[in-house]
Amino acid sequence: MIKVIVPATSANIAMGYDCLGMAVNLFTAVKIDGADKFNITGCDEAFQNEDNLVYQGFIQGCKHLKREVPTISIDIQSEIPESRGLGSSSACVVAGIIGAFEYFKEEVDKDVILQIATAMEGHPDNVAPAIYGGLCMAFEDSNGHYDVIKYPVDDSYYFTAVIPDFKVSTNEARKIVPKEVKTATVAHQLSHCLAMLNALSNGDIKQLNDAIDDRLHEPYRKKLINGFDDVKEIVEANDSVVYISGSGSTLIIISNSADRRDKIIEALQKRFEKFSIKNVEIMN
Amino acid sequence: MIKVIVPATSANIAMGYDCLGMAVNLFTAVKIDGADKFNITGCDEAFQNEDNLVYQGFIQGCKHLKREVPTISIDIQSEIPESRGLGSSSACVVAGIIGAFEYFKEEVDKDVILQIATAMEGHPDNVAPAIYGGLCMAFEDSNGHYDVIKYPVDDSYYFTAVIPDFKVSTNEARKIVPKEVKTATVAHQLSHCLAMLNALSNGDIKQLNDAIDDRLHEPYRKKLINGFDDVKEIVEANDSVVYISGSGSTLIIISNSADRRDKIIEALQKRFEKFSIKNVEIMN
Repeated sequence: MIKVIVPATSANIAMGYDCLGMAVNLFTAVKIDGADKFNITGCDEAFQNEDNLVYQGFIQGCKHLKREVPTISIDIQSEIPESRGLGSSSACVVAGIIGAFEYFKEEVDKDVILQIATAMEGHPDNVAPAIYGGLCMAFEDSNGHYDVIKYPVDDSYYFTAVIPDFKVSTNEARKIVPKEVKTATVAHQLSHCLAMLNALSNGDIKQLNDAIDDRLHEPYRKKLINGFDDVKEIVEANDSVVYISGSGSTLIIISNSADRRDKIIEALQKRFEKFSIKNVEIMN
Repeated sequence: MIKVIVPATSANIAMGYDCLGMAVNLFTAVKIDGADKFNITGCDEAFQNEDNLVYQGFIQGCKHLKREVPTISIDIQSEIPESRGLGSSSACVVAGIIGAFEYFKEEVDKDVILQIATAMEGHPDNVAPAIYGGLCMAFEDSNGHYDVIKYPVDDSYYFTAVIPDFKVSTNEARKIVPKEVKTATVAHQLSHCLAMLNALSNGDIKQLNDAIDDRLHEPYRKKLINGFDDVKEIVEANDSVVYISGSGSTLIIISNSADRRDKIIEALQKRFEKFSIKNVEIMN
């Protein structure tokens, strides 16, 4: 029996649309074992079938290794909420692929896992940090190969996930973003993304606040997240910043003081009783 | 008499459209002195009048310092070719503003100079490196203030400026870039800009080559630069990269070997007899 643990991931990180993501300490733990009959346990019944992403990842891993897919049992215990912008599907895909490599006692090469997982997911921003940990940027090089660059995050920052009691469909969140943007907006996004990475590395929350000013997706996607403006108001009143994790519904708050963070959490818990609010840490 | 020397600047740097720029060792040297009668020497006769950008910069500097504009003589000796994408106008503006501060023996605060110069130039990508040196990113923060972040460049890189015998009008070069781009292109530009900065800092020319793949301005602006495709072919055949400096016409070649650089220069000199080809260094 093999066991694979993969972290949740928060993609986009405000200014890093479709290229930045970071791993946080919520986990999907998967057990895979040889079995007489294919079966999946631990997850919602709707996912207990061959379309299961862990199993699909496992199949792609087997294909890469040129191995026949064995009959297996899969147990999935996940803390990562589904359709909340925390990379639950990427975690499953990655766990399944790594599971296949471990099942056949093959060396787990992160670069290979990244290529397979990105091909399955269509974009690398969640799978890269799920595999590499930390804050990652993934991009397609001229040979169609995905490369990863890791960025430091200053340890003075506190991260809090505000997980609403409703899902946001990734498809719907993609559709709501306009297909075209003004060229001037590109320069804005670019410069502010660079400033954001700088501020994340140096602990300057004032610069982080200046840098996080997305004009590409937040103005549209926030409409799918009931309460977004209220959360933002509470966060900003406490000199902290907030962004939509992936395509939502989760919001990630970044503070540089436990005191301010706690004040925000207290105010949010009063205002949004049904939301789950969790302090999270970056998984390096 | 005061003397101010300001470097040439190469803006955009392929993937850093309207936000990145770097200072290189071609200079504009300006002498300013009190005079009985306003006069300008050293530059083309067309610029020997009150519209002169050094003089205009000087006036804005005086305004900031709340000083009456004195009657001055200006001498301008410039190695920076005009309308070639090497920041000749930014160098003049910056020299004039600094000139005013030095004329009145006021402390030259780079941040203040940046604000005045950006207001005059409309964008900060040339003026920031002209003031701060090195490879700079400048962005407008939430208070309308321009901030600068500096990036390291590995000293294994060689830079060569290919300066054509024709000008490109900045206005025309701006007009030729489409007003809108696909949202997917933003993610491409963003990820590749991050990869480019990473490659510039770590000396990995393969990664630099993968990263420099502009889809925002080069496909359009290269049409204004006769010979662009030929230069690119020669450069790429020698495992080096090339980008349009600012809005052109200058192209900057980046190599990681003096040998390859020299081969490129030899081939270019044969092919483009009228172009000026100069090895340049980053001015930190």
